Amino acid sequence: MNDAARRKPGKVLCAVKDMQLARWIELLSHRRDVVTPEDDLSDPDIRFAVVWRPDPGLLAGLKGLEVIFSMGAGVDRLLEDPTIPDLPIVRVVDPSLTSHMVEFVLWRVLDHHRQGRLYREQQAARHWRQHKQWLAREVTVGVMGFGVLGRAAASRLLQLGFRVAGWSRSGATMEGVTTFGGEDGLPAFLAMTDILVVLLPLTDATRGIIDYDLLRRLRRDGPLGGPVLINAGRGQLQREDDIVRALDDGTLFEASLDVFAVEPLPADSPLWTHPRVFATPHIAAESDPGDLAPVMLDQMDAFERGEPLINVVDRNRGY
Amino acid sequence: MNDAARRKPGKVLCAVKDMQLARWIELLSHRRDVVTPEDDLSDPDIRFAVVWRPDPGLLAGLKGLEVIFSMGAGVDRLLEDPTIPDLPIVRVVDPSLTSHMVEFVLWRVLDHHRQGRLYREQQAARHWRQHKQWLAREVTVGVMGFGVLGRAAASRLLQLGFRVAGWSRSGATMEGVTTFGGEDGLPAFLAMTDILVVLLPLTDATRGIIDYDLLRRLRRDGPLGGPVLINAGRGQLQREDDIVRALDDGTLFEASLDVFAVEPLPADSPLWTHPRVFATPHIAAESDPGDLAPVMLDQMDAFERGEPLINVVDRNRGY
Repeated sequence: MNDAARRKPGKVLCAVKDMQLARWIELLSHRRDVVTPEDDLSDPDIRFAVVWRPDPGLLAGLKGLEVIFSMGAGVDRLLEDPTIPDLPIVRVVDPSLTSHMVEFVLWRVLDHHRQGRLYREQQAARHWRQHKQWLAREVTVGVMGFGVLGRAAASRLLQLGFRVAGWSRSGATMEGVTTFGGEDGLPAFLAMTDILVVLLPLTDATRGIIDYDLLRRLRRDGPLGGPVLINAGRGQLQREDDIVRALDDGTLFEASLDVFAVEPLPADSPLWTHPRVFATPHIAAESDPGDLAPVMLDQMDAFERGEPLINVVDRNRGY
Repeated sequence: MNDAARRKPGKVLCAVKDMQLARWIELLSHRRDVVTPEDDLSDPDIRFAVVWRPDPGLLAGLKGLEVIFSMGAGVDRLLEDPTIPDLPIVRVVDPSLTSHMVEFVLWRVLDHHRQGRLYREQQAARHWRQHKQWLAREVTVGVMGFGVLGRAAASRLLQLGFRVAGWSRSGATMEGVTTFGGEDGLPAFLAMTDILVVLLPLTDATRGIIDYDLLRRLRRDGPLGGPVLINAGRGQLQREDDIVRALDDGTLFEASLDVFAVEPLPADSPLWTHPRVFATPHIAAESDPGDLAPVMLDQMDAFERGEPLINVVDRNRGY
């Protein structure tokens, strides 16, 4: 790494699609030279790439590339590209992304818990009627995927008085939360869950995991009138035909879906108009470039000083 | 009080209207003799009354009455009755009432903060479009009325990253909250407030306080597109014509109203159908009798042992 220390600072390829590209370039340019996919990419000094949905093959052509920084919590799309070079991929989870996700989860949990749909329907009919409001401590929110985002959401839900359960592949634990791990722990986790919050990474093991059979195993005798699904993870975790079927036959009471198997959600999807579905256009947690860019630039500096990278993706696990 | 200690335990008149009367009678009967307004009220052993909207004049006839317990945070209706005897009125704020109010405030703040109305409209139109989401720390929630309920809500809002301001008659302070007191402090409080949460008691000084002039003084250059009003206190705090006018001319961006000057809200009120109003039928915070009754019974026991009452209403302040 002494060599690296003597080299001039690496340049950054900024390849962010459908995002605030100009803002990113400006923020990264404060501390490093920045190029975009339209520039000459043969420059061996391009040692870092900051990407969001890069075109397939783009990164394969960079001879000097050493580290890939991926925005957002999910790197599934990146790993689907077989031409992605075998370099460290740093998954940047900034504090604003976590805050936004916690807000989204609390917002949707409270809307189901406080009977938002029912009261909106009553307002539309000018109908004044009070309904029994159960207590938060009578409701169990089951958080499926118990990483940084899941744990942050669990902590706030506990403070509001909800009972919280957590499920993850590894069985990660947390004080005050009933946690379960792996395939063996799933049935007991589902059986106690009234509101299922899905924050799983998308991997071969989780693709399509939210299916009719899983929804059927959620708690049926809770106070809400039936189980509720909130998916703020990835659309391809869910089987959308199964969700509609479960809503229609009463297996599922309501759903808040922020992600879909195909995005934008096609105009003919029944999820747009289902009376028990609240659908949002993948807005749960967007990263703020102003928070994210300094975190990335600090890691680039540290890397060039020979220090280890933080939050490197394990390609075998897929997250 | 030695006399009192030798007397047999006082009976309880249970006069709760439009509430779960049977449940109340059952819960109070576990520990004391209970009578209702239909019984013979000349019994001098009736020393306690547990009331919610009692018929005017009812309590004036009780010769042995010593303490009145009023359900809920607001005693304005009780104090409007000139025949109410000059006895201690205990305002019972139980933990479940506080929890429910905090839930309601967070639910409504998050729905405005996360652009719920906009996304519901987009869903109805099958329109997939993401909008910029500002950060919680860019939004100031101003809590007007900074008692037990206001402070509990402020604490949770702070944890979610919102900036919080508090206003009360006395100028009560709280760590992390910018607080203001009295008439003099009101302009600066309003000028920094994006989302105004009203949890004031109804008194002669606060009746009609939420008027056009007050709404006009809220912060106009915040991230939400205009100021938002959330009233979970009392309907008679607000001038409803002024709220409609302010919504229509852009002075106010959106409102969540749980309380109204006349309840049930009359069918011809424009608040039912205003696209920027979310109206609920006074459901923010209902007390759970199972939580409330033991708190009252404990106070009755303590009173008969000669101990002081807690949360006695100051009739001059009106709360």
